[in-house]
Amino acid sequence: MAENMFRTDLALEAREMMAQEVRSSVSGIEVNERKTGDVKVTRVRIETEAAARALGKKQGTYVTLEMQGGIGGDAQAERQLIDLLAREVQSMIPQEGTVLVVGLGNRSSTPDALGPRTVEGVFVTRHMREMMTDEALEGVRSVCSFAPGVLGVTGIETAEILRGVAEHVQPAVVIAVDALASSSSERVATTVQLSDTGIHPGSGVGNRRCGIDKETMGVPVIAIGVPTVIYASTIALDVLHGLENTGQVACRFARGERVTEERRRAILRDNMPERLSRLMVTPRDIDRLIVDMARIIARSITPALYPSGTGDGQAGTRQSYRV
Amino acid sequence: MAENMFRTDLALEAREMMAQEVRSSVSGIEVNERKTGDVKVTRVRIETEAAARALGKKQGTYVTLEMQGGIGGDAQAERQLIDLLAREVQSMIPQEGTVLVVGLGNRSSTPDALGPRTVEGVFVTRHMREMMTDEALEGVRSVCSFAPGVLGVTGIETAEILRGVAEHVQPAVVIAVDALASSSSERVATTVQLSDTGIHPGSGVGNRRCGIDKETMGVPVIAIGVPTVIYASTIALDVLHGLENTGQVACRFARGERVTEERRRAILRDNMPERLSRLMVTPRDIDRLIVDMARIIARSITPALYPSGTGDGQAGTRQSYRV
Amino acid sequence: MAENMFRTDLALEAREMMAQEVRSSVSGIEVNERKTGDVKVTRVRIETEAAARALGKKQGTYVTLEMQGGIGGDAQAERQLIDLLAREVQSMIPQEGTVLVVGLGNRSSTPDALGPRTVEGVFVTRHMREMMTDEALEGVRSVCSFAPGVLGVTGIETAEILRGVAEHVQPAVVIAVDALASSSSERVATTVQLSDTGIHPGSGVGNRRCGIDKETMGVPVIAIGVPTVIYASTIALDVLHGLENTGQVACRFARGERVTEERRRAILRDNMPERLSRLMVTPRDIDRLIVDMARIIARSITPALYPSGTGDGQAGTRQSYRV
Amino acid sequence: MAENMFRTDLALEAREMMAQEVRSSVSGIEVNERKTGDVKVTRVRIETEAAARALGKKQGTYVTLEMQGGIGGDAQAERQLIDLLAREVQSMIPQEGTVLVVGLGNRSSTPDALGPRTVEGVFVTRHMREMMTDEALEGVRSVCSFAPGVLGVTGIETAEILRGVAEHVQPAVVIAVDALASSSSERVATTVQLSDTGIHPGSGVGNRRCGIDKETMGVPVIAIGVPTVIYASTIALDVLHGLENTGQVACRFARGERVTEERRRAILRDNMPERLSRLMVTPRDIDRLIVDMARIIARSITPALYPSGTGDGQAGTRQSYRV
Repeated sequence: MAENMFRTDLALEAREMMAQEVRSSVSGIEVNERKTGDVKVTRVRIETEAAARALGKKQGTYVTLEMQGGIGGDAQAERQLIDLLAREVQSMIPQEGTVLVVGLGNRSSTPDALGPRTVEGVFVTRHMREMMTDEALEGVRSVCSFAPGVLGVTGIETAEILRGVAEHVQPAVVIAVDALASSSSERVATTVQLSDTGIHPGSGVGNRRCGIDKETMGVPVIAIGVPTVIYASTIALDVLHGLENTGQVACRFARGERVTEERRRAILRDNMPERLSRLMVTPRDIDRLIVDMARIIARSITPALYPSGTGDGQAGTRQSYRV
Repeated sequence: MAENMFRTDLALEAREMMAQEVRSSVSGIEVNERKTGDVKVTRVRIETEAAARALGKKQGTYVTLEMQGGIGGDAQAERQLIDLLAREVQSMIPQEGTVLVVGLGNRSSTPDALGPRTVEGVFVTRHMREMMTDEALEGVRSVCSFAPGVLGVTGIETAEILRGVAEHVQPAVVIAVDALASSSSERVATTVQLSDTGIHPGSGVGNRRCGIDKETMGVPVIAIGVPTVIYASTIALDVLHGLENTGQVACRFARGERVTEERRRAILRDNMPERLSRLMVTPRDIDRLIVDMARIIARSITPALYPSGTGDGQAGTRQSYRV
Repeated sequence: MAENMFRTDLALEAREMMAQEVRSSVSGIEVNERKTGDVKVTRVRIETEAAARALGKKQGTYVTLEMQGGIGGDAQAERQLIDLLAREVQSMIPQEGTVLVVGLGNRSSTPDALGPRTVEGVFVTRHMREMMTDEALEGVRSVCSFAPGVLGVTGIETAEILRGVAEHVQPAVVIAVDALASSSSERVATTVQLSDTGIHPGSGVGNRRCGIDKETMGVPVIAIGVPTVIYASTIALDVLHGLENTGQVACRFARGERVTEERRRAILRDNMPERLSRLMVTPRDIDRLIVDMARIIARSITPALYPSGTGDGQAGTRQSYRV
Repeated sequence: MAENMFRTDLALEAREMMAQEVRSSVSGIEVNERKTGDVKVTRVRIETEAAARALGKKQGTYVTLEMQGGIGGDAQAERQLIDLLAREVQSMIPQEGTVLVVGLGNRSSTPDALGPRTVEGVFVTRHMREMMTDEALEGVRSVCSFAPGVLGVTGIETAEILRGVAEHVQPAVVIAVDALASSSSERVATTVQLSDTGIHPGSGVGNRRCGIDKETMGVPVIAIGVPTVIYASTIALDVLHGLENTGQVACRFARGERVTEERRRAILRDNMPERLSRLMVTPRDIDRLIVDMARIIARSITPALYPSGTGDGQAGTRQSYRV
């Protein structure tokens, strides 16, 4: 984590972190914001290779849904988030063929358990289709799901396992759910990022070393992620800002000039004490937040797969007990 | 479950259930018993196709280790079971090549979670080998592990997932850990069965429909199972016996003659109320028994892989916290 | 459990088990049935001491709500059950004073965890009232909750702990939530029993030896229970019935006469093999059923405390993450 | 947490944080260090009221056991820690009378679950003593245990609950187990603090507002704590140090003079961004560390209660499955 402590898994944040002068000089990044009720939807399109390099993110579309008031508190706001998310998922996936939902992360580590717990709540149908009549089959899409575990527990690269499974399942699309890291404490467990780019090295709470994307999987990979941890460096930066705002303290180079934001990030990155990388910063109520977010994502995926809405009731059935 | 309620996953029990006259007429079943401390080790060899058919078990070797006093109570007895089990595992697996440990069953259903929880405790090395020196590599076998989930949650046949993973991992042997059903309440969570035949349809607490064996996986499959549930019909039979032993009651055919044990089983099988199949019979302390047995099996597997004993300390490391 | 294996924690079942001739001879039992949507509500009033003895239940009112289609499947039916239950709770409790919700049972044993898990989902206010304005206080009742654990884990009688806590909290009423045993597999996790009689020796999944009622606690005790286990003897009886229905088999006294239902129960009770008492019979999906039922009961209690409906939103807040 | 972010629950750390000049001016603090194998044992005695005020800790004895290599890795080192801890506990408690072990904290929040999980592993006897012969009673001390929950979930002050229970149980001593906060990432989940002073306001991961000590409980309270979280401010300080060590950056007052360590703490304390108080910093493997530490403490308490060693085997029995 040391080397990428200023990475963020959110394209939105990557862009916010860009220095103003850099931002205006890079073309090929299109940003749209929209507000629906309590949910702010930001769509970032990275359209050129140069823009991708500048942001440290693959070319593609990143949709961020931010719940202004946090989750867990308001059933109506939760319903709204589910509806918006379902619509976004539906617009990104092909309308035919098997959907394979994969839950990345470690079931035994609370903030990393989002993926596996979401998988437990997704309503699967692939195994029931052979028993159905043609008529019944029309309204039911083939859905399957799977939690590959993490390298440290299995000894097998996640991408290897997923390729093996995909070769047998032959999905039309993979939806990969993962816990992310954010550089903003406000976004933890309140924000969902959806993208059509797959998941890449160094992303996530733990490291998944090989990419899980169209190149490695052979089919489109839609990534759904929720920040569940914050980088330790975020706290350090927040504290530095807090200190400077007091006017009493200033962080300066030895030579005396003021440290710019970018230089500050670079210095922090290069000098972060090693032992901080063993630590993890989460909200105090992370245990319940993971349960809530896993339920929300599972409930968002299911209607997305059944445009006619038939899946919704079934989703309720399963999600109510699995997550 | 209705159709196989008199099946038992233990070869030992299948043999015990054979009518005496049948037993003596079937050749090709070799049974050896041995007692080491508090552990009774029974080795059943099914040597002919006729014997396999008679027992409803594949040809091969089934080793049953029974802890006389149950587990969880006695650290010394537990250590003894681990040692004996490790030796048996070691004698069944090839001495070279990657070992893939798979934990079958549903992590979210207590009595079916034995496999997934064991996997969490196995010490894996496959991913670390590329960073090791040749010297270090000599003492460390390539081990990886994996929990495929269950059909009802994933929508994918367990065997399909495992084949996909094995094609990438190319193991020399698969060790499959699963929760079993027993027809004896005394054997639940006190007995471990080890066999070189793999795992077959209808076995386990849930149903895994396709076999996981040398035929489907392409390499030898060693099965390690522990009974965690009892068939409802076992209770019915126990009660019938109890009643008859009182001398006050007799279960008779309408015509009056006494019902033989085999006929009794057949009648029960054919007339079991449907709703009983929704039920599950477990020991009262099943939650802790699963934790204990998963730890014991994980601890048994690790030294089996490191004949020199080097793995043992590492096993302690991992198992102490994973299971 | 051996001695009370034909006890049932449901007054409804106790009455069903009474022999027809006995039933008609005992006065003082009033039964009303009503159906609201998918929920059948049965109200049993035990009005005399003789009736209480005949049923093995304390004098008082027992309201049973049965979900015809089971729970977990239908959000609308769940909402209906919550509404009906909330209304019943509200009609039983005093309209003023602190409410103490206690969750009986063992958090670490799946079918016995209903009470502790419900407590985690109840919205408590008692500690916040000192910070509120008089105006705010009007709409908010003082609610607190508590899980005392079980004798086998704490070494302290549950009633002792509760008395100690009640002496400090001085509640106007105690609502005690507990897992029950049923003699019918259909009622497990589909039925809620509410009574104004408290909870008594031998009830529940484990044994709580001292009564928790108005006598011991000094204030009214409302009991809310859900059957989560079935008696092993239920299976035996079901099997005997199944066998007899085939016409092939009959269970007879040695002398030949037919065994009446009551006699049958008595014989089973007196001759149940000891080892069966170590076993527990639950639905296969007990892990999720407990989560579902704990959520439903927590959601039922909260609006019951806030007749104006103000509590409902808050309930949603808390229950969504605690249970 | 804002106001006490530089508090530490460890007396050892409180002393380390004192400015050198202050330290030498305050008398009444006695410190002894000893090393046994891999465990460093530090004994801090706060002997005067002035010393207590200077350290922000009550008068009394604080024994800190630090595992140099961390826990979870080495069975032998774990055994050593258990032995040392058991001896310390034994020397602090009265040799007669009932022992009440209480596990403080929130079972549903991973880093705060240490107390409740320890309680699940303690071997209790109080409820069995009435069934024992006089002879058997001699070797068995009356032990009971209890997890009161947290104010936010119960609505009842922890101290109120404990007083209520203690009035009924009449213990000779209370052993209170709690998760602590540390200002050093190295001490998290590697260090155990034992003290004879009880537990005080603002201690622990959550806040328990009323003291649990001899004054409130009426009997001696031995506190056993393990740091499971780190203050966010610790990270900020670590980062500032890291930056300064580079020589490139210096944090200065606006006027230019260098900031002393104490001033730095004060400035950080006064200017910590509010939102950081919603965060929690833990080791990445906190889920397993809690399981490990709960097991270690439960195993330490039991032999402490049975000086003759009779309790040890029993401890093994229970702890092996409860924690």
